[in-house]
Amino acid sequence: MTLLYGVDPRTGARLEPGVPETDPETVAAFGVTAANAARPLAELPLPDRAALLDAVADALEAAADELVTLADAETALGRARLTGEMERTTGQLRLLAGEARREGFQRDTAEPGFVRALLPIGPVAVYAASNFPFAFSVAGGDTASAWAAGCPVIVKAHPGHPRTSVRTAEIISDALAKAGAPEGTFAIAHGLEAGLALIKDPNVKAAGFTGSVRGGRALFDAAVSRPDPIPFYGELGSVNPVFVTPSAVAARGEEIARGYVGSFTLGSGQFCTKPGLLFLPAGHGLEAVLAQAIASVEAPSLLTPRITEAFRTGVERLAAGTRTVAESAGAHLVAVTATEFAARPELTEECFGPASVIVEYASEEELRAAAAAVPGSLTATVHAESSDADLARGLVAELARHAGRVVYNGWPTGVAVNRAMHHGGPWPATTAPLHTSVGTAAIRRFQVPVTFQGLPEELLPPTVG
Amino acid sequence: MTLLYGVDPRTGARLEPGVPETDPETVAAFGVTAANAARPLAELPLPDRAALLDAVADALEAAADELVTLADAETALGRARLTGEMERTTGQLRLLAGEARREGFQRDTAEPGFVRALLPIGPVAVYAASNFPFAFSVAGGDTASAWAAGCPVIVKAHPGHPRTSVRTAEIISDALAKAGAPEGTFAIAHGLEAGLALIKDPNVKAAGFTGSVRGGRALFDAAVSRPDPIPFYGELGSVNPVFVTPSAVAARGEEIARGYVGSFTLGSGQFCTKPGLLFLPAGHGLEAVLAQAIASVEAPSLLTPRITEAFRTGVERLAAGTRTVAESAGAHLVAVTATEFAARPELTEECFGPASVIVEYASEEELRAAAAAVPGSLTATVHAESSDADLARGLVAELARHAGRVVYNGWPTGVAVNRAMHHGGPWPATTAPLHTSVGTAAIRRFQVPVTFQGLPEELLPPTVG
Repeated sequence: MTLLYGVDPRTGARLEPGVPETDPETVAAFGVTAANAARPLAELPLPDRAALLDAVADALEAAADELVTLADAETALGRARLTGEMERTTGQLRLLAGEARREGFQRDTAEPGFVRALLPIGPVAVYAASNFPFAFSVAGGDTASAWAAGCPVIVKAHPGHPRTSVRTAEIISDALAKAGAPEGTFAIAHGLEAGLALIKDPNVKAAGFTGSVRGGRALFDAAVSRPDPIPFYGELGSVNPVFVTPSAVAARGEEIARGYVGSFTLGSGQFCTKPGLLFLPAGHGLEAVLAQAIASVEAPSLLTPRITEAFRTGVERLAAGTRTVAESAGAHLVAVTATEFAARPELTEECFGPASVIVEYASEEELRAAAAAVPGSLTATVHAESSDADLARGLVAELARHAGRVVYNGWPTGVAVNRAMHHGGPWPATTAPLHTSVGTAAIRRFQVPVTFQGLPEELLPPTVG
Repeated sequence: MTLLYGVDPRTGARLEPGVPETDPETVAAFGVTAANAARPLAELPLPDRAALLDAVADALEAAADELVTLADAETALGRARLTGEMERTTGQLRLLAGEARREGFQRDTAEPGFVRALLPIGPVAVYAASNFPFAFSVAGGDTASAWAAGCPVIVKAHPGHPRTSVRTAEIISDALAKAGAPEGTFAIAHGLEAGLALIKDPNVKAAGFTGSVRGGRALFDAAVSRPDPIPFYGELGSVNPVFVTPSAVAARGEEIARGYVGSFTLGSGQFCTKPGLLFLPAGHGLEAVLAQAIASVEAPSLLTPRITEAFRTGVERLAAGTRTVAESAGAHLVAVTATEFAARPELTEECFGPASVIVEYASEEELRAAAAAVPGSLTATVHAESSDADLARGLVAELARHAGRVVYNGWPTGVAVNRAMHHGGPWPATTAPLHTSVGTAAIRRFQVPVTFQGLPEELLPPTVG
């Protein structure tokens, strides 16, 4: 039996005990149990379904201290951040529970003789992320939105925090059993092979994923190559460009420079919304402020040895042929001209960790051309003043074609969990540009429409009424 | 230059003149022109966008007589049916125009500081179907819903009706130009190679398809294998099972038998909603009525020589190892027991044309087991009486997991175009079970959400306001 071990990022020490990898036969058994749970879970009255999410939120909240300790040892994200992340995770479960309780939640629309309902798609595979051991992991947004839709969930745990995952899963299973959930509403698998078996499992009907372009593409390819292709909602890589107009630099250049360094080094640059590109007018004169801000950033403990190594090579890639603006133990910042940038598409690839690229534009024309050429991203940001409104309006209209969220005079890190959030975007930001993994609309990924024609009300599924 | 020719199904004669295949360079040029049209089309005020659909509807209506004549020569569907189909096509364009005019059409939802909008995804490739030369072809539902979303369209014409396609495209292009549409709002391509080039074109951002499992799967595979995978909305194959309870047979068995023959032979069985499976209680005693109904069905002129040949082999496949209930020049009906059916999965494959399979069940248990085992379909139908309400309720709940539309005491052929329609379903009925190709919700396939955060109202794209 192969064991998986977490590693303490602060010391490099292996964390005991190890967690056994899940064999393919067990994954197949999870699929069968989940398929058997699908119909009873779908037919549970909606208040009872919502109560399952609330029960999990309550149980996680009660165990928050223990889970934060486990997660801090495996990720070095710190107790303050992890405590906040746990609050977001339980808040998310409760928000989605509330959505499932909303009147008419599953009745999409009706016409005389026709009712269109949104029903659960069936068992969902959830691939947990490294960088949010709670909010995008075992009990994270994908799991919560699949449950809110009425779908059983099989989580593939992230190897970066195996003990946190195991303990979270125990708490979930216990809470679900006590709340009367059908057996098979939840299961967890560990290991690369288990993850591959899961995406091919005939009982799995959709998948959610947050992670790298390479890993996400491999799973996407497996999902769409099945005899019966299934929807694969992957959030992959994003550079999250920020565009600063000349008037914004004139009005508040230093504030923007400090905000930028704060945003791209937040959480050691390990957010999917980290700004990886900053467009500034040539001659902005902010080098000293940027260098000062960067000097005060502490050295990061990145999440895993693999991420640490990828960051080292990523920084080398960025440094080659660019001008270093500032570097410290905690952050790396390089600069190129817009002309140089246009010739080096590799600068638009995400570098996970506290590094970013400044692109200096010589004219508004160069700025607009750069906006038209940025790759698909989760976010794009514009900093402008009212004197630049026409330029800003044009940038916003262009960027809305390249990003799932356009931020104005703010920073992309920190994603609100609400009804109006779209955390998605064109490839390579996601594999499914119509969908979000954050906010109440995330539930829609796991609902399929069914139209009932000529059906008397008393024969409709009770959850549709 | 290779020419494509239509064939008169009534005589087998080649129809002059031929239509040139589109070369890959021209397809690439279409992609560039469509990409250039994307932003002006997206930013057109919504009433002006809607006016484009209305203008095309008016122009098609004015040319209906000419188009019906062309289409009848190429498809043998008959003037009455084709005239009705043209009315549906123009009605569909106007319904979707009305949707695009609806207040708040693109503003999905808002929270303080956040507006979530639904914006056009970009240029769309539409693969036309053989069996609806108007309603699922050049100016059909995929084209209309992509335009309503604000997307340029490049149609790949179906080779079964090339002259109808060319003339429809001329009328569309003329109407769009007169109505002031951006150049590149519409283009049409002909030929297999052009279709393959189109799905791989980097400027194409989504595709709609109606056709066979084989053709749809090949294009789906190409769409998801791109460096940047794109959404592919394919409607492929469906057997549309019908379940008749014992009480329904007792109350109105002969009426059901005649309705069934009428439904599976309607339009020579060339509807994607044709009922290919009928579940009847053993000893139903309806053989004579079924044989009588089938004897009066006229010999079909199937759409193309290829479909005629596929139907011949399909009937041979169904006949092997089954009992022939009735056959005539116009229709083929075979029967098996539920036990035999469970052992022969090939009977669940669609046979396009006027053929169907009766499955005789020995018990309610066998009926329920059969419902749980049917493949993904566009529709599933239940015929029951109130004395069988529990059985009916159980069947409806199960079938809602296998079909996009559940019909009660009716027939699946004839799809209403309205706000509550879902024309979709699990694989192999479609490649995208969350989406419909018919009704107003079809527009959603070509809209991507974008959240605007902290943006003053005056900087929002004007179509979002």
